[in-house]
Amino acid sequence: MHVFERTIRLEHTDGAGVVFFARYFQLAHEAYEDLLDAIGQSLPADLAAAPILYPIVHAESDYRAMLRMGDRLRVEVTVEELKSRSFRLGYRFMNPAGEDAARLETVHVAVDKATGKSTRLPDELRSALEGA
Amino acid sequence: MHVFERTIRLEHTDGAGVVFFARYFQLAHEAYEDLLDAIGQSLPADLAAAPILYPIVHAESDYRAMLRMGDRLRVEVTVEELKSRSFRLGYRFMNPAGEDAARLETVHVAVDKATGKSTRLPDELRSALEGA
Amino acid sequence: MHVFERTIRLEHTDGAGVVFFARYFQLAHEAYEDLLDAIGQSLPADLAAAPILYPIVHAESDYRAMLRMGDRLRVEVTVEELKSRSFRLGYRFMNPAGEDAARLETVHVAVDKATGKSTRLPDELRSALEGA
Amino acid sequence: MHVFERTIRLEHTDGAGVVFFARYFQLAHEAYEDLLDAIGQSLPADLAAAPILYPIVHAESDYRAMLRMGDRLRVEVTVEELKSRSFRLGYRFMNPAGEDAARLETVHVAVDKATGKSTRLPDELRSALEGA
Repeated sequence: MHVFERTIRLEHTDGAGVVFFARYFQLAHEAYEDLLDAIGQSLPADLAAAPILYPIVHAESDYRAMLRMGDRLRVEVTVEELKSRSFRLGYRFMNPAGEDAARLETVHVAVDKATGKSTRLPDELRSALEGA
Repeated sequence: MHVFERTIRLEHTDGAGVVFFARYFQLAHEAYEDLLDAIGQSLPADLAAAPILYPIVHAESDYRAMLRMGDRLRVEVTVEELKSRSFRLGYRFMNPAGEDAARLETVHVAVDKATGKSTRLPDELRSALEGA
Repeated sequence: MHVFERTIRLEHTDGAGVVFFARYFQLAHEAYEDLLDAIGQSLPADLAAAPILYPIVHAESDYRAMLRMGDRLRVEVTVEELKSRSFRLGYRFMNPAGEDAARLETVHVAVDKATGKSTRLPDELRSALEGA
Repeated sequence: MHVFERTIRLEHTDGAGVVFFARYFQLAHEAYEDLLDAIGQSLPADLAAAPILYPIVHAESDYRAMLRMGDRLRVEVTVEELKSRSFRLGYRFMNPAGEDAARLETVHVAVDKATGKSTRLPDELRSALEGA
């Protein structure tokens, strides 16, 4: 499990005074990138030139409690499933009171840029995710 | 069914050269607001003062084809389910070739701002959604 | 002068109930892309492969009136200056009452991707902007 | 001077493979909120209920070097001007090589929500900004 923390900012909120539902996915991706950094598998700065990409083929979120500007958000990222060509991550969002604010998941498939087809996860990434 | 069309812009894309996965939810919400306008149920300009809100309690997306800058996106919004206190919308995203780019859904619950609890959908909104 | 209109949506607003200041720049860029489409100079779908890019080297905004969710925004885009290697665009944002909501500008420089240096504006783009 | 650091993420980038120009303003606001936290003047979670707001009346940015995904961004925030009813902040964005990536500024005016007119900066905020 990887823990990512950050403060909710004005740009995450909307006119209802709470975090806009689509921003949870943005925040989850930030937590995912933070996880990749932590396991030595950072996304390359030049994604357009990367031979293998891991696009998200499914994403979902269950919203349980509001998040407000200034809240210190804690995200626990877990590798829920690791298959030969894909992986699924779970995200538990907790508000400052330690309550569940949301549960998200994202499913990523390894795609070979040259062929446009799915491919096996590189061993190095697989090992790194297994240890996460 | 309600049809919403718009052009994909630079701000929707990310460093991989395609639309960032979280922006699909933003685009779906734009289609939802467009639907509400079309059925005479526009969200109020001052959401903070609205007596009833319809927060999203669940959202999900299945991604099937990339969307690129300049693509004319067509979104078909359908009321998938209408319950006493909630409704579920489906969104079919189509690219300019008429192919499925993504399928999304959002589940909205009517919440009474005064009590913070779920409440019945107002009849007017219910009727309008039934006719959508 | 090019006119771009769109409706302000929830995603543009922040917890203060009005459009977040940074979104004005996003909206201006949408108006700029709409202008390019109108003059037959659309940005290429694959920007990473474009030989010449027109990055923004300066942007500014004066905010005069709030914009709220549901407002029909009218943007008048004007080519303010056209130089050999750069151009400056002005954006007048008007709210539904026809009042000035904001004035923005962006300065774009033609950059040759191969050298990373500024280059002359292509004649075709120059002519198209002159006629805008 | 206040220093704010954060990592550039995929959501900040666009199809050109670098940070989208409008996101610099979003990042600057994040640095501003971080400054307010540091000087004990955090924005209230419920902005809609705040008696005094500090809307931005002017913002500008000069872009000098690209920022890419994964870059560790350093922002130096300085109070450039402190007047009776307004203040101006400067932001120096530096990339990991310590080079200037951008210079931004934002001008904020104190507005009394009840009257909709400008008002004097509260003494507490003034003192805190003087010490920043």
